[in-house]
Amino acid sequence: MTYGSARMKEPNVPNRKTLLTLPTPCLVLDRAKLRRNIARMKAACARTGVKLRPHLKTAKSIEVARLFDGPDSPGIAVSTLLEAEYFASNGIRDIQYAVGITPDKLDRVAAIQREGARVTLITDDLGTAQAICRHATEANAVFHVQIEIDCGERRSGVEPDSPLVLEIARTLAGDENVVFDGVMTHAGHSYGCRSLKEIEAVAEAERLAVVTAAERIRATGIPCPTVSVGSSPTALHARHLEGVTETRAGVFMFGDVFQAQILTCDLEDLAVSVLTEVTGHRADLRHMTVDAGALAMSKDRSTENVSNDVGFGLAADIDGSVYSPQLTIARVYQEHGLIPVALPHALDDFTIGSRLRIYPNHVCMTASMYPRYFVVDSEESDGIEVVEEWKRISGW
Amino acid sequence: MTYGSARMKEPNVPNRKTLLTLPTPCLVLDRAKLRRNIARMKAACARTGVKLRPHLKTAKSIEVARLFDGPDSPGIAVSTLLEAEYFASNGIRDIQYAVGITPDKLDRVAAIQREGARVTLITDDLGTAQAICRHATEANAVFHVQIEIDCGERRSGVEPDSPLVLEIARTLAGDENVVFDGVMTHAGHSYGCRSLKEIEAVAEAERLAVVTAAERIRATGIPCPTVSVGSSPTALHARHLEGVTETRAGVFMFGDVFQAQILTCDLEDLAVSVLTEVTGHRADLRHMTVDAGALAMSKDRSTENVSNDVGFGLAADIDGSVYSPQLTIARVYQEHGLIPVALPHALDDFTIGSRLRIYPNHVCMTASMYPRYFVVDSEESDGIEVVEEWKRISGW
Ligand SMILES: Cc1ncc(COP(=O)(O)O)c(C=O)c1O
Ligand SMILES: Cc1ncc(COP(=O)(O)O)c(C=O)c1O
Repeated sequence: MTYGSARMKEPNVPNRKTLLTLPTPCLVLDRAKLRRNIARMKAACARTGVKLRPHLKTAKSIEVARLFDGPDSPGIAVSTLLEAEYFASNGIRDIQYAVGITPDKLDRVAAIQREGARVTLITDDLGTAQAICRHATEANAVFHVQIEIDCGERRSGVEPDSPLVLEIARTLAGDENVVFDGVMTHAGHSYGCRSLKEIEAVAEAERLAVVTAAERIRATGIPCPTVSVGSSPTALHARHLEGVTETRAGVFMFGDVFQAQILTCDLEDLAVSVLTEVTGHRADLRHMTVDAGALAMSKDRSTENVSNDVGFGLAADIDGSVYSPQLTIARVYQEHGLIPVALPHALDDFTIGSRLRIYPNHVCMTASMYPRYFVVDSEESDGIEVVEEWKRISGW
Repeated sequence: MTYGSARMKEPNVPNRKTLLTLPTPCLVLDRAKLRRNIARMKAACARTGVKLRPHLKTAKSIEVARLFDGPDSPGIAVSTLLEAEYFASNGIRDIQYAVGITPDKLDRVAAIQREGARVTLITDDLGTAQAICRHATEANAVFHVQIEIDCGERRSGVEPDSPLVLEIARTLAGDENVVFDGVMTHAGHSYGCRSLKEIEAVAEAERLAVVTAAERIRATGIPCPTVSVGSSPTALHARHLEGVTETRAGVFMFGDVFQAQILTCDLEDLAVSVLTEVTGHRADLRHMTVDAGALAMSKDRSTENVSNDVGFGLAADIDGSVYSPQLTIARVYQEHGLIPVALPHALDDFTIGSRLRIYPNHVCMTASMYPRYFVVDSEESDGIEVVEEWKRISGW
């Protein structure tokens, strides 16, 4: 049994930056895989006949957002006001802030809108809807608002058949400074599915929840233009999305080991990995250490609950090919990751300083620690040359 | 049963910034508690007669580092080269990089040293020791190096009685561009202790491991000036540290819920919390949502394995007082935290927009997502006014 010698750092060559010269740990993004993942989601949306509103909470990068440009993607979704500010200042004009708004945050929203972008808000609360109306008048602003519906995730939102749906709709639609824009929901519980059949069922529940709410609102004479759904599994695998106007999906563009196990993608599609180097050997304990620890990978343990638990990440060689037998980061400390090997002599293939790429459990968590993507391209280039560097943001 | 109404955002008042005006989520540091935690550790070190080398991997802030200034704290420890660069550029001259060095990283170390700081390295590998010697000659640099000893953590390091200890010592001591500085170990397995007695035993094993290694090296005629140990539990609770010259400890300065449960501190000592606001109510599901989710708290679940599992964080009021009955963040999504309540009417005390402080499980993980500390002082001020803002760094 041998893994083949892992490759070492190479001396710097002017004008050539590669995964063999970068300082570790750092974040690697394969543009070819990213583009394929986007094409696949666009094809799914074309099939279901809905517009795609990519959720940029995972990527947090304007360069990634621009890959969605086109008539089928009218705008984006974000999860923080910092993302809204960042994307607005980079020219994106249609932004849905897909986390329940609070009255506190309306000043920041109004400020973004004064620079020219529209930030569509969501709420599931009548008091908040009233506060939005008051604030719109006081601040001389116009707010576009959707009602958040719970389709079974049991996190936030209003039940689709609750009287509250109509009360909030009436409050919003009745105010001249507020535009009632429609309804939205997120089938986050699709992450609990383990088969296509289950995903299809959750996708149908997701669709039905917002379509029901929209129909009830329309029956009172209030227009309900937007009917928005979305999670990566349901967006890809919904049988049909009749009555839905757009779908938000985020993690699909990068993929991660957990998503591969819940059928959003294959391991070969994972676009983001952490570049790390071997920092030590403990042949007596049958493990090596790498410089990708808890901060580099995050403490996310999503794969604990799926078929193949990969600990804190799944190791691959510098070209991104997963090892066989599989190698995983089984234990993490703040800056140490620990990769067990079955037999001590396997360590001979991983000299100290040799480089690995680690696919994360949950890429939204892992990416959050890094200020940039080192972009490689496994189609247009050799897959280890850094062809671009894209900044990403973090924080609130 | 009532919690008392949680306080809401207040309008901005010129020249007064408080926890009731800051955008959420953000990181709060109570300077009074920080100072007390430092004083307690200094007293423990005075008792055991060792110097304190604070590990800045948790705080990553020069303002925090400066609180240790004085003859009893000769320098600091760090966990990344970015920390070393940052602290060196802020005037700290004696820095121990307390993670195994690789040959790759020596250029960066040499660059820091050219600006005037000394970066002491650690290794547990003979090949690396030889590479350090080669690199010192080639780069015309001087490297100070310690041997990392394993005292039972089983992560990295050489067993204290291994022949390798002497081989590495001879290699380092025999090179004219390398200063062999001594031995170090870290009793990370003290985090597994659940009683003072157990901690004392691990502290003694930690001490014995390095003292044994140091004595063996000295017996061959090689001087071994530094004998370094440290983790927060062992640094505080060691019965004696005979033969040890300095101790590194990090997390004690802030404390967290896990450390409180393993006896490093009390809940009243926790200096760092996340300021969050209530973003939604689901009375039907008996929970509220807050804007401190997985990114704001981290996915660390350390308290899963101790007496009182607090989920992803323990809630307190704006003054930092923990609620009774206890409130915790039981579930997290990227930007949502979910706090269950026993009875729906408890939500009446937590209007949407009201503010809480959440004590983290593991502060090293939580703090890593924030670019700054909003500093309050529960002794010199009212405890909610922001008296200072301290920058912190992240990344590698
Ligand atoms: C409201 C909302 N919409 C859409 C998404 C995107 O889901 P996914 O990352 O599965 O594509 C999320 C993810 O958390 C979300 O919270
Ligand atoms: C080598 C080393 N020394 C010291 C420490 C500090 O330990 P603590 O944070 O428990 O004080 C750590 C923590 O990880 C460490 O890895």
